[in-house]
Amino acid sequence: MIYFDNSATTKTYDEVAKYVSDCSTNMFYNPSSVYAPSIKVKNSLNEARSKMLKLLNASSSDNIYFTGSATEANNIILNGLTRKNKKILVSVGEHPSLFETARNLKNNGFDVQFVNLNKDGTLDIQHLLSLLDEDVGLVSFIHVSNETGAINDIKEISKLIKQRVPNCLVHCDGVQAFCKVPVNLSSTMVDAYTISSHKVHGPKGVGAFYLRHGVNLKPSVFGGGQESGIRPGTENVPGILGFVLASEIMSKNFEQNFEHVSTLKSKMIELLNQKCSNFVINAEQANTSPYVLSVSFANVKGEVLLHALEAYQIYVSTGSACSSKLSGNRVLSAMGQSQQNINGNIRFSFCESNTLAEVEAVVDAVATELEKLRRL
Amino acid sequence: MIYFDNSATTKTYDEVAKYVSDCSTNMFYNPSSVYAPSIKVKNSLNEARSKMLKLLNASSSDNIYFTGSATEANNIILNGLTRKNKKILVSVGEHPSLFETARNLKNNGFDVQFVNLNKDGTLDIQHLLSLLDEDVGLVSFIHVSNETGAINDIKEISKLIKQRVPNCLVHCDGVQAFCKVPVNLSSTMVDAYTISSHKVHGPKGVGAFYLRHGVNLKPSVFGGGQESGIRPGTENVPGILGFVLASEIMSKNFEQNFEHVSTLKSKMIELLNQKCSNFVINAEQANTSPYVLSVSFANVKGEVLLHALEAYQIYVSTGSACSSKLSGNRVLSAMGQSQQNINGNIRFSFCESNTLAEVEAVVDAVATELEKLRRL
Repeated sequence: MIYFDNSATTKTYDEVAKYVSDCSTNMFYNPSSVYAPSIKVKNSLNEARSKMLKLLNASSSDNIYFTGSATEANNIILNGLTRKNKKILVSVGEHPSLFETARNLKNNGFDVQFVNLNKDGTLDIQHLLSLLDEDVGLVSFIHVSNETGAINDIKEISKLIKQRVPNCLVHCDGVQAFCKVPVNLSSTMVDAYTISSHKVHGPKGVGAFYLRHGVNLKPSVFGGGQESGIRPGTENVPGILGFVLASEIMSKNFEQNFEHVSTLKSKMIELLNQKCSNFVINAEQANTSPYVLSVSFANVKGEVLLHALEAYQIYVSTGSACSSKLSGNRVLSAMGQSQQNINGNIRFSFCESNTLAEVEAVVDAVATELEKLRRL
Repeated sequence: MIYFDNSATTKTYDEVAKYVSDCSTNMFYNPSSVYAPSIKVKNSLNEARSKMLKLLNASSSDNIYFTGSATEANNIILNGLTRKNKKILVSVGEHPSLFETARNLKNNGFDVQFVNLNKDGTLDIQHLLSLLDEDVGLVSFIHVSNETGAINDIKEISKLIKQRVPNCLVHCDGVQAFCKVPVNLSSTMVDAYTISSHKVHGPKGVGAFYLRHGVNLKPSVFGGGQESGIRPGTENVPGILGFVLASEIMSKNFEQNFEHVSTLKSKMIELLNQKCSNFVINAEQANTSPYVLSVSFANVKGEVLLHALEAYQIYVSTGSACSSKLSGNRVLSAMGQSQQNINGNIRFSFCESNTLAEVEAVVDAVATELEKLRRL
């Protein structure tokens, strides 16, 4: 089995799964209760926040809120940072959890404007600046594209925004970036940042977001006051601790993993060029994450190729899992890709346990199946 | 250690924790992906829905949506079933996830009216009927009170509502009821019903709600379209499967557990009457869940007694964990309790692994500490 769909989800690390299981039985107390074992759980939860701030290279005075998913985090952030009579700028390259939430705000009368992408999949900064004025209260854009791996320079872009509109808030969706490309929030002017556990070999059902100290977020979910009233509901402490452990493991091995998946990606591009024809690598001109390789093959349907690869127990995706059910591909369209390139899109996404032998096997299978399918 | 705070949260069953851990590594695939291992995960998820419908004694044509918590479920339901120009009736005995969401709707211009409680902690049906007219679109009330264990007759009340206003929707929060008192949704006219994993020895971070076939719920969370667009975000399949397994274990042992905790509760009341003085049992006149015993002790502060019991490694709560941070106790107030009774409130809540010896030890400790504290 070759799993090249790590941007869709990752396998939970064995030691993380075991740790979560242990916490479920040993640290099951409700952190809102007031006796000693609960307070211990509450302290672990607050320690988890501190650890996460460190992993994001953020200030210890900033905040982390844990959620049940990155989708929930993106909804809470966009709804919570939106102000009446203030415009919102959202990139068209966003994950649906951001893009669809923005569309809902627009449908409810908010002034939401969408920022174009460049051909290389990065944010069109000129377009952003042309839309940016004193009435803009929030700009939201993705750090690493879930579709193409294109990296937006969050330091530079947040600085540009704040230089022109100091009070404008900046949110970045860092789900595909965290633990995979360098994230150093204190060097940026980003106010809010979303991350996800199941993309970094942590348990599913856990997300989080960073909020810079002093940023005021209006609650949109209501309940018992947990997570400072921002995300009420009994905290999933075992899951949260598992998320932090997985992030720590990935961060500890960051350089080594980064180098390894970079080698895999380069090798894959090299072999594709040797063995296949008529394809384009999406976002090739951009700085991209080594964890994602998006390729569009001419004269073949991505879905058909995907299923052909299944026969080899090779698992990849046609664009992101989250968009696979939606028609077309908004992100590739926004990059100006032809319908043929969109139809023939395959996303290969790596993790540190993938190997060069797997890359070779995948390219061989792609070459064989491409030839077969194109002959039909 | 004696844990009598099972209404706050329960210890995950060992076999459930292990199963979730196994699923995290063996069934980690994204159910939105389209290759065989993902489809297998997707099928397990849909099987989980069917199993949950059976456990709720609901029709197989009805729907189950999984969420990241019961709080999220209550938010989605209340926001999603509310219609413009339609009134909403919500009991004052609700969990904060329902009550605060209702208050937010009211603050946003919706016509929300609150239904009183009887002195025994059950819903004041006469008050409900006096508020009920053709303009009411939704009534929401708790099945088993998280504060007192008082049981509302959801069959009878839903029938009364539908007889008068057939198009009015009925939601019940079943978090403290599911697997603990009989739940037979197909015999009721309830349209939506909320349940929680961590209250039934399942993993934390998982909730669900039932929605009767044909009931239209407006989405309030946006993303990649998972859970029919009602609760987007990559599904926490390991957690969901763990929730179902825990529910199946509890349901299989339902009669036996029910009898056991009933014995514990009766014994506790008997011993309290023998060994302590000056207390009232809240909701004593109502039909209550055997899993919850709410007692108000005169001339002592509940919080002080709670901490005194901690010295014996006895863990209880002063009202629900979710309301412990909020001032006062809305539910006991609504029952017309005196401030003294509210201040002296302790909630003991059981599970099937608690023992009669524990009950005796707790009552002895309560008697000893009451005497000490009252002397001060």
